[in-house]
Amino acid sequence: MTREQRHHPGTQTERRGFAEVMTRPVPDDVTTRTTTLGGRPALEFVPAAADARRGRLLYLHGGGYVLGSPHTHAGLVGELARRARIRTTSLEYRLAPEHPFPAAVEDGLAAYRALLDGGTDPRELALAGDSAGGGLAIATLLAAREAGLPQPAAVAVMSPWTDLTLSGDSISSKEEIDPVFTADRVRTFADRYLGDRDRTHPLASPVLADLTGLPPMLVQVGSYEMLLDDAVRLAGRAGAADVDVTLQVWPRAPHVFQHQYGHLDAADAALDRAARFLAARLEAPR
Amino acid sequence: MTREQRHHPGTQTERRGFAEVMTRPVPDDVTTRTTTLGGRPALEFVPAAADARRGRLLYLHGGGYVLGSPHTHAGLVGELARRARIRTTSLEYRLAPEHPFPAAVEDGLAAYRALLDGGTDPRELALAGDSAGGGLAIATLLAAREAGLPQPAAVAVMSPWTDLTLSGDSISSKEEIDPVFTADRVRTFADRYLGDRDRTHPLASPVLADLTGLPPMLVQVGSYEMLLDDAVRLAGRAGAADVDVTLQVWPRAPHVFQHQYGHLDAADAALDRAARFLAARLEAPR
Repeated sequence: MTREQRHHPGTQTERRGFAEVMTRPVPDDVTTRTTTLGGRPALEFVPAAADARRGRLLYLHGGGYVLGSPHTHAGLVGELARRARIRTTSLEYRLAPEHPFPAAVEDGLAAYRALLDGGTDPRELALAGDSAGGGLAIATLLAAREAGLPQPAAVAVMSPWTDLTLSGDSISSKEEIDPVFTADRVRTFADRYLGDRDRTHPLASPVLADLTGLPPMLVQVGSYEMLLDDAVRLAGRAGAADVDVTLQVWPRAPHVFQHQYGHLDAADAALDRAARFLAARLEAPR
Repeated sequence: MTREQRHHPGTQTERRGFAEVMTRPVPDDVTTRTTTLGGRPALEFVPAAADARRGRLLYLHGGGYVLGSPHTHAGLVGELARRARIRTTSLEYRLAPEHPFPAAVEDGLAAYRALLDGGTDPRELALAGDSAGGGLAIATLLAAREAGLPQPAAVAVMSPWTDLTLSGDSISSKEEIDPVFTADRVRTFADRYLGDRDRTHPLASPVLADLTGLPPMLVQVGSYEMLLDDAVRLAGRAGAADVDVTLQVWPRAPHVFQHQYGHLDAADAALDRAARFLAARLEAPR
């Protein structure tokens, strides 16, 4: 037992429960292999129909910066990779509270840099993520911008958590109807990730950042979630900063409803739209 | 000269100037004919490739509730009708200051009701509009809801003017970069339309309304316009009210940039996306 685990005895139990609830199998026509990227473990997805010209997708999973892994999200990410026909790498970034902010952003940036260093043309590279991983995808692009790296061709985020100050109206207005979260639960994720660090830091709450220079962005969100305003304000701020942005709000859909592909029409429709967005942006340069 | 024209001697000159600047020809493969709808003159567009099963589109043109007509927008509306392959009726609603609020909304509602009374299935009917006509399209749907009429299959708005109180941040933050408007100019349109009426009335400023029950909505806007926040907040409010909404922000595009089809790639792309949205929603019910 590490020092961090002794300090957070419930986190391992919470992670096991999350994995049990969330994990779905990889689609049959997608092969996976473990790899490393930027010094971190990762899971790579190669769809049978992958088109090598369509480049690469770097995926950052959700789980409040505390829970989840490429394995808990292997079904979702495999479905996205399959539908977009894009070879995808899902990163096992370091989790809080053992590794608080900015560890996850450092890992996201290192993975992005490793893909560029490995010869991937940024015009053939996209990022995606859900929930905390959606916020982390935006933060990674901001960190890449600050590091002087080129931006990728596109970024797609599902129910992104972009405001760790919890200042969106929907945090209260949607709490009753949100089947996934309570404000207390969201707050404990922010507490474990940030400790006593500034919750307004642009790499922690990218909705508060200057988003100038970010690539074409797709933002998907459900109307039955407390994080609705995290998505709406991200799109508004990105648009105001001259980013090409599309926001899609699904009525009566909960947080990361895309996980329910195969059971919920909206989930399949949203995944298809995200896949088309990514494929179109990655095809454009050639 | 009518009494109203004596009171507003510059309006006719302003209308002629607007018509000279704006009017573009109807596409070759779209035929037009004058008609009446709900007691008002209208211009009907029938694309050569129109698919009768695809129903009808009711279009409400822009011009600050003061300027414009189906003729000034015949090129834009013809392009939308052609690309969506939808028979389209563009309404000559009454203009301010001769006919202030709520005359335009009354005409929009009468036209919508006339289409339903004429046997059009609401599932085969959509609304669209630009600028003031975009706000008017939303107001018309709210008026239809209050009148107990069914909602149509979809609504698509381009750079909608939805807040006649001018309370959006972009009214000031984008004034320098907006090549079309100044805050003073927008305010004179609101003054002529509303006089001393309440600018927060939900049928005048539909972004302030409860948008519950509205149909799937597409909102397009440019990032170089003072009305950016009218669009972003409309999408956010609609989403929060469980409306199926898509917001598309085009970077560095001005107010109703779709008018520049054939000259500006973003204009053609936006019209194509609006057309696909409408066609898909009108095809779905059957």
